[in-house]
Amino acid sequence: MATGGAPVHSDLPDVLEPLRGDLEAVGRAYARILESRAPHVAEMVAHAARFTGKRLRPALACLAARVVRGDIVPDVATVAAIVELIHTATLVHDDVLDGAMVRRRVATLNALWGDDTAVLLGDVLFSRAYLAAARLDDRFASVYLSEVVGEVLEGEIRQNRERHNLDLDETAYRSVIRGKTAALYEAALVVGAHYAGGDRETVRALAAYGHHLGMAFQIVDDRLDLAGDEATVGKSLGVDLREGKVTLPVIVWLRSRPSSERSEARALVEAAGRDDAAQERLVRHLRADGALAAADTAARDEAEAAQKALESVPAGAARDLLRLLAEYVIRRSL
Amino acid sequence: MATGGAPVHSDLPDVLEPLRGDLEAVGRAYARILESRAPHVAEMVAHAARFTGKRLRPALACLAARVVRGDIVPDVATVAAIVELIHTATLVHDDVLDGAMVRRRVATLNALWGDDTAVLLGDVLFSRAYLAAARLDDRFASVYLSEVVGEVLEGEIRQNRERHNLDLDETAYRSVIRGKTAALYEAALVVGAHYAGGDRETVRALAAYGHHLGMAFQIVDDRLDLAGDEATVGKSLGVDLREGKVTLPVIVWLRSRPSSERSEARALVEAAGRDDAAQERLVRHLRADGALAAADTAARDEAEAAQKALESVPAGAARDLLRLLAEYVIRRSL
Repeated sequence: MATGGAPVHSDLPDVLEPLRGDLEAVGRAYARILESRAPHVAEMVAHAARFTGKRLRPALACLAARVVRGDIVPDVATVAAIVELIHTATLVHDDVLDGAMVRRRVATLNALWGDDTAVLLGDVLFSRAYLAAARLDDRFASVYLSEVVGEVLEGEIRQNRERHNLDLDETAYRSVIRGKTAALYEAALVVGAHYAGGDRETVRALAAYGHHLGMAFQIVDDRLDLAGDEATVGKSLGVDLREGKVTLPVIVWLRSRPSSERSEARALVEAAGRDDAAQERLVRHLRADGALAAADTAARDEAEAAQKALESVPAGAARDLLRLLAEYVIRRSL
Repeated sequence: MATGGAPVHSDLPDVLEPLRGDLEAVGRAYARILESRAPHVAEMVAHAARFTGKRLRPALACLAARVVRGDIVPDVATVAAIVELIHTATLVHDDVLDGAMVRRRVATLNALWGDDTAVLLGDVLFSRAYLAAARLDDRFASVYLSEVVGEVLEGEIRQNRERHNLDLDETAYRSVIRGKTAALYEAALVVGAHYAGGDRETVRALAAYGHHLGMAFQIVDDRLDLAGDEATVGKSLGVDLREGKVTLPVIVWLRSRPSSERSEARALVEAAGRDDAAQERLVRHLRADGALAAADTAARDEAEAAQKALESVPAGAARDLLRLLAEYVIRRSL
């Protein structure tokens, strides 16, 4: 592999420090999966490896394995790397579509090599993920992760097609974030537990944990985009509004408006996607009318459901860390 | 599935008429692979099914199976459909990157639903192809086709990165077209023969046939783009020159220029990418100096190598048709 391709380790959150050794094994598996004899491709693939961020998904896979058997086995490191690679591939395509120039302080592939090549390279990353899954002795991941990728993509497609749809209800919103976020969180836990030899009961409980954790994460993420602290969130606010993405606080607020105020309320949401003053006005309403608080409660409920799902799995340090992660996701200390 | 999604059968070339029944079985497998519960996605996926063209790749898979055992079995129809689906997925992404509005007289996905959704839908098509492969009892296709997709994509990436590189030599050109075209032709034959139960010798011979057929096809395609009959080719000429793609006739011509004329010759190739008069002048040179004829010879050599590879496989109607296809590819009667 070309130089400069080593994953950046500095982003590891403190709470995941006990997993450093596991995540190094995952990093080696990741590098092996991405090895390429084609020099052009090797260079770009190595660059993509630098997008590695918090590595929450591989950490979840390793923790699931540790819940089951106290350690990780080589196949667990591989499936954890595959899940992370699938996530990276979706980010590469997202960056092309958003015209993003920088990701995690590193130039995006489209910025460096153009949209054409970046789309093809995202396809390469997916193909490597599928290949690595197909090579495992136990074909479970090969079938299951192909299905999960389909679900993730369908969630993203639905989100695109529902842009600017102010009639989007909470059920539809939940179905979108289930696909685009929670499905892959759940998958990380499922493959980790499965390849560690977990029984059906334990896999199912960890799957439920992953689903609820992902839902909590995305609800918090969407809420912070509307009314977070720009310095803490680390990106500019109101992106969803500008892109016409209707998220939970807005849904809650719109449905709580008396019918006499509804058309005015909808006009404000639309205006908030275009100008900053309207956005500030909308956020004041979301806060005053309890819509932000309702989203916070929904996120907390998901985090609690995640923790509750853990009750039936073997106790120990790994389970404790999973419990803690559900807290961290809510407090956004990750 | 939404209405209007049935594959268009009118494009079946006469020479493939004996395979109509096989290709209908492939069409049913294709539709099954693409079934979707998500209504938005079902509509788009059904639309993508309408891009079905000559169905040469699935025909090759079926012919390989017929060489081996005289008929096709369900898994052969499935792998033939998977190969076609992989091809369709690459076309969907190509259309986004080219900004193409129409493919085979049908609006492209990007034209109908925007680039964002079209990229995601291409990803969905790939995920369905991998999933269908992963579900086969024999995992051969799952590993092998993931590798082939990687090779196809690396060929396309290399082509992009070599744009406007007038130092591209014939070896590099052949490596590009091997990836972008011949690899998937070869794969169609290999999976067809493998899932029909072909022995290693037969699979290898059919693989060689597929490789050489694909090389012949692409050399002819590139040559026609420079100097074909627009009515016959069915698209405007000189596209490769305008996109900076350096193909065999140009490579042959540039390398045959005496060093005193070389910089002038290179300037003409560059100018031909920008204006029609220079393009006409270049094509006159390519013809007069034997560069077009050299490409024709190269294509014929590949077609003959394809036919020669067939000598070691069982004789019969399927082998005869494969022989004939190698002729058709050269004469471009397909």
